[in-house]
Amino acid sequence: MAKSDVKVKVLGTWSSPFVMRARIALNIKSVNYEFLQERLWEGKSELLLKSNPVHRKVPVLIHGDKSICESLIIVQYINEVWSFAPSILPSDPHERATSRFWAPYLDEKWFPSLRTIGVAQGEDARKAAIAQVEEGLLLLEEAFGKCSKGKPFFGGDQIGYLDIAFGCFLGWLRVTEKMSGMKLLSISKTPSLLKWADRFCSDIAVKDVMPETEKLAEFAKMIMAKMRGAAPPK
Amino acid sequence: MAKSDVKVKVLGTWSSPFVMRARIALNIKSVNYEFLQERLWEGKSELLLKSNPVHRKVPVLIHGDKSICESLIIVQYINEVWSFAPSILPSDPHERATSRFWAPYLDEKWFPSLRTIGVAQGEDARKAAIAQVEEGLLLLEEAFGKCSKGKPFFGGDQIGYLDIAFGCFLGWLRVTEKMSGMKLLSISKTPSLLKWADRFCSDIAVKDVMPETEKLAEFAKMIMAKMRGAAPPK
Repeated sequence: MAKSDVKVKVLGTWSSPFVMRARIALNIKSVNYEFLQERLWEGKSELLLKSNPVHRKVPVLIHGDKSICESLIIVQYINEVWSFAPSILPSDPHERATSRFWAPYLDEKWFPSLRTIGVAQGEDARKAAIAQVEEGLLLLEEAFGKCSKGKPFFGGDQIGYLDIAFGCFLGWLRVTEKMSGMKLLSISKTPSLLKWADRFCSDIAVKDVMPETEKLAEFAKMIMAKMRGAAPPK
Repeated sequence: MAKSDVKVKVLGTWSSPFVMRARIALNIKSVNYEFLQERLWEGKSELLLKSNPVHRKVPVLIHGDKSICESLIIVQYINEVWSFAPSILPSDPHERATSRFWAPYLDEKWFPSLRTIGVAQGEDARKAAIAQVEEGLLLLEEAFGKCSKGKPFFGGDQIGYLDIAFGCFLGWLRVTEKMSGMKLLSISKTPSLLKWADRFCSDIAVKDVMPETEKLAEFAKMIMAKMRGAAPPK
């Protein structure tokens, strides 16, 4: 069967930054796919439980009869199956290692701190989370200089692995800025990232999957209401 | 400069399973390297702080003037720089994705539970950790069948990425068995993994870097004494 005849599906939610990674990678490779939206508040679908029995999480990429789980693994899988240009990972092994280095940092340290800003119990915890997010942004500003080498993206002329890994959080970064009244990305401290964020969000592979800040902020309020045990808005 | 003229160093400790991953990958590729042992109890070396300023952790691979951090990223880097056979990752994209899937599961879920068995506060926490370790081993027993396809290793005829990712924990698994008096790998529940573990530990790429169980158990006692605030044995 030709590669283009094999059906591609993404199980996910519109609001998840991790799901966005899979969708952006497919868009970069111009692969058509069906987006199957999970309604996680109402329970996980049979397909999700069957496709990702260990973690039971979105995203899952379904490619023919195969399931691939975990967003960064999905991005690498997409790059390897549809191996034509543009390549999502750099060809140089050290540049690949650098891209790969930042992705778990973002997932395990930076994004959890970003989330904490909105839900922290107490001012000290909130301040600590803000400090961690700002420290991370300064590190990424420096990394941008090294990775992009004066070009528009971490990946050079095109969106690459680290652009996807980091850029998928921009919706939630903007929501955090909006709800807290702070500027986390700024012309004074992170001028390169500030411009990069606009370029990334308006890229053809991204703009249709990046949620609008207003819609995401409403969703964030609903989640926070649920966490507090209040009834969510209809 | 020819690839073989560029100096290769590993910053690490003999007891760290993560450091072992880098050393096994270099051994598989027959790359000579210098092993620079860190004395973490006495403070981290200048070289470590300079080479891994974000996490300040071992292992670090130093290849000429480049530093590569994070054990699984180092293994992939080694496979890409010394790209001749044997390949550490499968060539098939779905098999690569499967190998990559289990590695973070081991690091983020399974190994933390294994560690908890020895240091859990209270019997309930200990029982929960044992249950998680045993559940993980059953999942990995099943994965072994699918990945190895009747061959000796997860990677087939040769040690591969998932063998390295999981096998590096066998020293600590054996210490946990020894100190708790339990059998975690058994002929009744995990017959394939039990045989695989012996094969892995006696492989030429592994046997000189896998710590002896007795020595590691003494080290574990010292750590636990330190955690309790007692003076460590001399």
